[in-house]
Amino acid sequence: MNAPLKADDTDLAALMADLATKARAAARVLALAPAEQKNTGLAAMAAALRASAPKLLAANAEDVAEARASGATPAFVDRLALNDARIETMAAGLDVVRGLDDPVGKVTERWTRPNGMTIERVRVPLGVAAVIFESRPNVLADAGALCLKSGNAVILRGGSDSFRSCQAIHACLTQGLREAGLPEAAISLVPTRDRAAVGLLLSGLDGRIDVIVPRGGKSLVARVEAEARVPVFAHLDGNNHVFVDKAASLDMAKTIVLNAKMRRPGICGAAETLLVDKAAAPAQLKPLVGMLIDAGCEVRGDTDVQKADARVTPVTEDDWATEFEAPIIAAKVVGGLDEAIAHIERYGSHHTDAIVTDDATAATRFLNEVDSAIVLHNASTQFADGGEFGFGAEIGIATGKFHARGPVGVEQLTSFKYRVHGTGQTRP
Amino acid sequence: MNAPLKADDTDLAALMADLATKARAAARVLALAPAEQKNTGLAAMAAALRASAPKLLAANAEDVAEARASGATPAFVDRLALNDARIETMAAGLDVVRGLDDPVGKVTERWTRPNGMTIERVRVPLGVAAVIFESRPNVLADAGALCLKSGNAVILRGGSDSFRSCQAIHACLTQGLREAGLPEAAISLVPTRDRAAVGLLLSGLDGRIDVIVPRGGKSLVARVEAEARVPVFAHLDGNNHVFVDKAASLDMAKTIVLNAKMRRPGICGAAETLLVDKAAAPAQLKPLVGMLIDAGCEVRGDTDVQKADARVTPVTEDDWATEFEAPIIAAKVVGGLDEAIAHIERYGSHHTDAIVTDDATAATRFLNEVDSAIVLHNASTQFADGGEFGFGAEIGIATGKFHARGPVGVEQLTSFKYRVHGTGQTRP
Repeated sequence: MNAPLKADDTDLAALMADLATKARAAARVLALAPAEQKNTGLAAMAAALRASAPKLLAANAEDVAEARASGATPAFVDRLALNDARIETMAAGLDVVRGLDDPVGKVTERWTRPNGMTIERVRVPLGVAAVIFESRPNVLADAGALCLKSGNAVILRGGSDSFRSCQAIHACLTQGLREAGLPEAAISLVPTRDRAAVGLLLSGLDGRIDVIVPRGGKSLVARVEAEARVPVFAHLDGNNHVFVDKAASLDMAKTIVLNAKMRRPGICGAAETLLVDKAAAPAQLKPLVGMLIDAGCEVRGDTDVQKADARVTPVTEDDWATEFEAPIIAAKVVGGLDEAIAHIERYGSHHTDAIVTDDATAATRFLNEVDSAIVLHNASTQFADGGEFGFGAEIGIATGKFHARGPVGVEQLTSFKYRVHGTGQTRP
Repeated sequence: MNAPLKADDTDLAALMADLATKARAAARVLALAPAEQKNTGLAAMAAALRASAPKLLAANAEDVAEARASGATPAFVDRLALNDARIETMAAGLDVVRGLDDPVGKVTERWTRPNGMTIERVRVPLGVAAVIFESRPNVLADAGALCLKSGNAVILRGGSDSFRSCQAIHACLTQGLREAGLPEAAISLVPTRDRAAVGLLLSGLDGRIDVIVPRGGKSLVARVEAEARVPVFAHLDGNNHVFVDKAASLDMAKTIVLNAKMRRPGICGAAETLLVDKAAAPAQLKPLVGMLIDAGCEVRGDTDVQKADARVTPVTEDDWATEFEAPIIAAKVVGGLDEAIAHIERYGSHHTDAIVTDDATAATRFLNEVDSAIVLHNASTQFADGGEFGFGAEIGIATGKFHARGPVGVEQLTSFKYRVHGTGQTRP
């Protein structure tokens, strides 16, 4: 297989163009497919995944062996590895998506004009999505199911390390589509490990791709944001804050701060900075900081925070803007609500921020004035998740303000059209 | 003023960065400004425009004289020229926007999770818009008003030919902002004719611009689409179709076809192709085609259409994909609804398409299956307009599927956030 580079490039371009053309044709079929037919497909996919566990594990074992041989880190291998429980989680995820309401065809607004025309705004699929992910093969099943439910065709491109696992999972999804009489091109997997395929997807393949969803680390997301010539649902930083207001109860502050930081310190909804109102500090700072450190969290604080506990290390300017993704938190005493909001505006990433307070007025101001996708009053930032919002599942969390913001579920994977019902109206 | 090119570039970059920084700060204020304050500003702007008519006319006369001297076409000068009626139309446009509901802060969904948290989805402004327009100076007032109403700051960049007119109109808007106690940077005008300013706006100025709206001809829109590093509300082709189904009444077909093509042949909602069901053709083709030609429309038809009237000229393959923006229409006899839908999918631009029929089933299929922003049953395609939809005014029509689709009014100039009201919930 040592064909000249030029010929390879041409072949790859032709292969990707063909994939996109077939996906677009499939999208036309999916846009009109009844909910029941899509659900039949999802049920068949889940059944195929469950029935194919031995095949999936065998394919995955080859990927894992290759990754280990090439010196992959244990964390990388953990993300890559499948086992029976993970396969069942994937299948159960398809069942959850199957149970969601079908967003397509839903009339979200309807009004009648003075001339008698009735206008309806109705949800329609976006078209063709490209999902680019890294080593976790389960993303393939999740993304495939969410796109199918929302009537979109999808082209999936997994990390080359998970190539065999992805092919095995994809075969199960294809089987489900076939059993439901849906086009196989509704969910396609880029059939090559050639990394140049990503660049072709990012080009939009001559308008045949409508949206790109990167699922992975910051370098992947940054590359997609920089190169994509089509809209992207991108997740950048989750530099989230918990502000403990002067009217916060200590018990609630402790519960929420601990959960927001330490439940899972590495997820995007984890808190990265604790802000404590100076009026609350005398009573609350020491117990909050002590609790975090006792729980295994490194606290990096300003001088006020350092005074509260000898184990606090000094915070740097960079720390305020850092998503640690680890049991580390920056901590600061602020002059009050205004300073807290200003700090969040200056250093935050507009993802998820919370206030703990018993003062309804302060809560309202915080929720209105903090310009983040998710703002919470007396609840943990770790709720930043499509499942926790009741969306059933999410294809990701969007940190932009365009089209989708926050958890991206099936509804955010749709666009809309206007249907106009007239009786012969013409424009004067 | 023969400073070295390098220095000029640096100055311009600094000037634009400063403009964007001030706009972003103003956006923070606008996002929280009450509806009443924004309306006070809009009323004061309209009053200032009306009171400043002589100044506006004088500034405009200089622009017009310069354009004429440099050999501008009469059509160009007509777009550029102001008169008392046009100034009153601008001021009245501000009054219309003032009368619209304020979209900011509107709760569009509210639900309670099993754990007792209440989640609200609430509209918030997008942030900072950049509107790039060509010779029509009235776009400045329209766009400024729509952005203010929707809580967005805006940076406006008009065609260099309308520079003095734009400055004069902008002074009225600034006066209105000042009278309402709103930051002047809420609506700013790029204070230079240097064309390099457009490139800097398209770069997004380091994340300080959230959306770009090009208002002008296809070459401007194409450049913006190609170069912009931030989201764009772009209007590409309006290659619209009217399909006369076999169950159409001739009277309604004639009324709608004539209006759709000939009311204003140059607007984006004008019909460009007439499709006639072959079952309707014997009775309807000749009267429809004859009516169009008698009204001054050139009809380019396939062989069937040519047989209906000797004045029909032969259609070319390119004509099917052309937005004529003129009293010219392509016409074809199709085998039925399926062929009509397939033709529109192949050649159309997903803008606005209509079916004329008394058959409700055919209408439903057409409205569901044609993948266009606006699909109409028994109404003219010329209704593709924000005012006609009841949006009061529009900043443009979007032909993409992302975020906004069809007429872009104040609601489409907003994003949303999730407000979560808890009582101490943590994630298990």
